Amino acid sequence: MSKVLDEVLAANADYVEDFGDKGDLPMPPGRNFSILTCMDARLDPAKYAGLAEGDAHVIRNAGGRASDDAIRSLVISYKLLGTKEWFVIHHSDCGMETFNNEIMGDLLASSLKTAKVDASGWHDSNEGPGSTEGKFSQWLTISDQNQSVTEDVKRIRSNSMVPSDIPIYGYIYDSKTGKLIEVPEATEAGKAS
Amino acid sequence: MSKVLDEVLAANADYVEDFGDKGDLPMPPGRNFSILTCMDARLDPAKYAGLAEGDAHVIRNAGGRASDDAIRSLVISYKLLGTKEWFVIHHSDCGMETFNNEIMGDLLASSLKTAKVDASGWHDSNEGPGSTEGKFSQWLTISDQNQSVTEDVKRIRSNSMVPSDIPIYGYIYDSKTGKLIEVPEATEAGKAS
Repeated sequence: MSKVLDEVLAANADYVEDFGDKGDLPMPPGRNFSILTCMDARLDPAKYAGLAEGDAHVIRNAGGRASDDAIRSLVISYKLLGTKEWFVIHHSDCGMETFNNEIMGDLLASSLKTAKVDASGWHDSNEGPGSTEGKFSQWLTISDQNQSVTEDVKRIRSNSMVPSDIPIYGYIYDSKTGKLIEVPEATEAGKAS
Repeated sequence: MSKVLDEVLAANADYVEDFGDKGDLPMPPGRNFSILTCMDARLDPAKYAGLAEGDAHVIRNAGGRASDDAIRSLVISYKLLGTKEWFVIHHSDCGMETFNNEIMGDLLASSLKTAKVDASGWHDSNEGPGSTEGKFSQWLTISDQNQSVTEDVKRIRSNSMVPSDIPIYGYIYDSKTGKLIEVPEATEAGKAS
């Protein structure tokens, strides 16, 4: 067994030991909100936003981007499980600022045996219901955090499956201090109406 | 200001107060692995798998499904940030077992003013590089956890951007006990070669 797998299962056994009555928690988030944030290893949304088990949905991907799949998750979060407020939280020193589609294409092309990869990178579909303004594509890299948070809040806001009465807050997590810093332009774009 | 926003910012201020030297953590995950799991509010991957800030990438969506966007994140996790082992972890009593594409279509159609939504639900693109066997579409609902974990490990394994030497482990988190239970068929399908 790999060292990592061994460690994860050992930590899990400790968690089970102290699980208490968490098995009784209901499925819908007790505090009725969701956070979309980055997969970055340094970020712990439960800690930085004060979440206990059962409190809130947490959606994470590379960059914390409002991809089609993140919007799928948010719509389910609201429609089936009753969340009423959403956060989009990107962060400083994000890996998504360190490359672009061309670099990723080159990296993949040089390491893979298959010839299937081209420099155009990833393609996120925008063909679903409730299609939005602004087509996302490729790797969803970030050049400016204020801009990416605002862009993502707008993308969510403009999706026809997203109800107009859910406020969407835009924040940047400062990786150096742990602090959440508002992106006023994003929060403004995410206002409920 | 909303109560939730107020509480999140207050909790964050406490976190900043005790942040210590976490601002010095490097970007790549210190323990070189990633977890793909569900957004469910009851799940805290850092707690159930024993992660400290800086340890591992955590990718989350509705169901913990291997959507195109989750695979985008995993490929970035490996290629740019050096992860070497991946977990796919679904869980018992998942919201994704409680509906299907038709129900979601009806729910949306009845609540939205726009006429853009149809019962065919969500469409996940599969047109990117490294296209895989098995096209995902619609809401990625789950009828059986063992099956969904295995299906997702296979979908990741078969993507041409995923290197063959990364093992992918398949587990189900038991929401009643906190325990991680292996899905042997998934782990077998995810074996490195």
